[in-house]
Amino acid sequence: MYIESPKNPKVQAWAALKTNKGRTSHPAYLAEGARLAVEALQSDRHVEALLFDVAANDDYGRLRQLAQARSVAVHELSPHAFATLSDTVTSQGVMAVVAIPPSPPRYPAYTLVLDGVQDPGNVGTLLRTADAFGVPEVCCSESTADAFAPKVIRASMGGIFRVSVHRTDTASYIRDWMKQHQDGNVVITEADGSTPCHEIPFTHPTLVVIGSEASGVSDAARALASVEAYIPMTARTESLNAAVAGSIVLYESYRQRQSISP
Amino acid sequence: MYIESPKNPKVQAWAALKTNKGRTSHPAYLAEGARLAVEALQSDRHVEALLFDVAANDDYGRLRQLAQARSVAVHELSPHAFATLSDTVTSQGVMAVVAIPPSPPRYPAYTLVLDGVQDPGNVGTLLRTADAFGVPEVCCSESTADAFAPKVIRASMGGIFRVSVHRTDTASYIRDWMKQHQDGNVVITEADGSTPCHEIPFTHPTLVVIGSEASGVSDAARALASVEAYIPMTARTESLNAAVAGSIVLYESYRQRQSISP
Repeated sequence: MYIESPKNPKVQAWAALKTNKGRTSHPAYLAEGARLAVEALQSDRHVEALLFDVAANDDYGRLRQLAQARSVAVHELSPHAFATLSDTVTSQGVMAVVAIPPSPPRYPAYTLVLDGVQDPGNVGTLLRTADAFGVPEVCCSESTADAFAPKVIRASMGGIFRVSVHRTDTASYIRDWMKQHQDGNVVITEADGSTPCHEIPFTHPTLVVIGSEASGVSDAARALASVEAYIPMTARTESLNAAVAGSIVLYESYRQRQSISP
Repeated sequence: MYIESPKNPKVQAWAALKTNKGRTSHPAYLAEGARLAVEALQSDRHVEALLFDVAANDDYGRLRQLAQARSVAVHELSPHAFATLSDTVTSQGVMAVVAIPPSPPRYPAYTLVLDGVQDPGNVGTLLRTADAFGVPEVCCSESTADAFAPKVIRASMGGIFRVSVHRTDTASYIRDWMKQHQDGNVVITEADGSTPCHEIPFTHPTLVVIGSEASGVSDAARALASVEAYIPMTARTESLNAAVAGSIVLYESYRQRQSISP
């Protein structure tokens, strides 16, 4: 189906998905670019539609085949209409509209809480890392950048299609997780922590909390923590990037759990 | 000294430092924000000037004291003039003009080569991580985003003031480093590498190469590599973010060198 006008009701409904408010009234998000669209179609997520810019440089034959195989509606948009949906500087002229799945918390044995991570790039990078190191669920606090915003989706590089994202307040999630894992550890990372991150006992179920770039973890999370970890580094630097620090802790967790440590 | 007009020659000369070309003709860069300005003044870098927006919400007393103590010229700029220099959405109204130091390569025993890292945020994050894990020198290939671009400086969070940045082609730097460290290892990270990164023998001098986000390390670096490492992860994910992957390797290096490994 070809859509010419940016004022077409469908286009306006998709454009609304770029905002937090729009995604609240219709739970779906835009995954822009060929790689993300392929990954969406290969994941178990429900893809509501696949949108093409008729002026795109590629005919995206493989993507169209994947869409057809999954009976996904395909729309051809005028460059002007597509531009109202695009969030990139140089668009590839393709995006998927993906439903936000209902995600009741499952409290897996290894889980991650983003407790006020502000930067969408950091949130997306941490979703990507969680996926890489086998963390199936990520809880995002109300103060964390929305996990379905376009910049987060792009930085997640497809992680968003495989990791379950649950939005709630940090303290409730931690308390409910602790009920399911009474021998588990709640780990926060702080510059003045007492346990180097390679000594965190990851043989126990572990909930890792990553705090905000500016002020670290919330008081609520600190009150519930059982391990105050730190990443050994030279004294000169105050901190690592939040996504880097979180990724190092998740790496350590995976390394130890796989018993690949010497 | 107060400067009203954005067309003032000094303002135009500073504005030129936002571009690669401008930094080539006058080797200096802009470090925007209060935290970066403080760190610049506390570092051993030569700060050419400190610039304030007269409409800033803060009088920055401490910064002014630091500048006076180091005899750094202070300029007050009109909001209009300051805006032509600012690279941030919500500016703090202060920036330092910092000289790019001459940095002949020193080929330290632990060193990092950025071999085509494109994203300025990734380059800045890797400079920050290098600083945190005691890597004193970073070689940036010609194909790597310029280390003195405003976005890199901000992402480095002051790392740029403590790490020496050397720009040259990857192969020359690696060859010269190998001459100084004949027992050293040149480590590249690849999805199909053979050595898990916790088994890299960091007891030897080590040069770590981080390749581009899209295509990994260059053929030149691959030809000179002695260790093809990988980061253990679940099979589903193709790769980690380049800054995360590089940071994990530098973390492993630091962890092992400090003999803090169990």
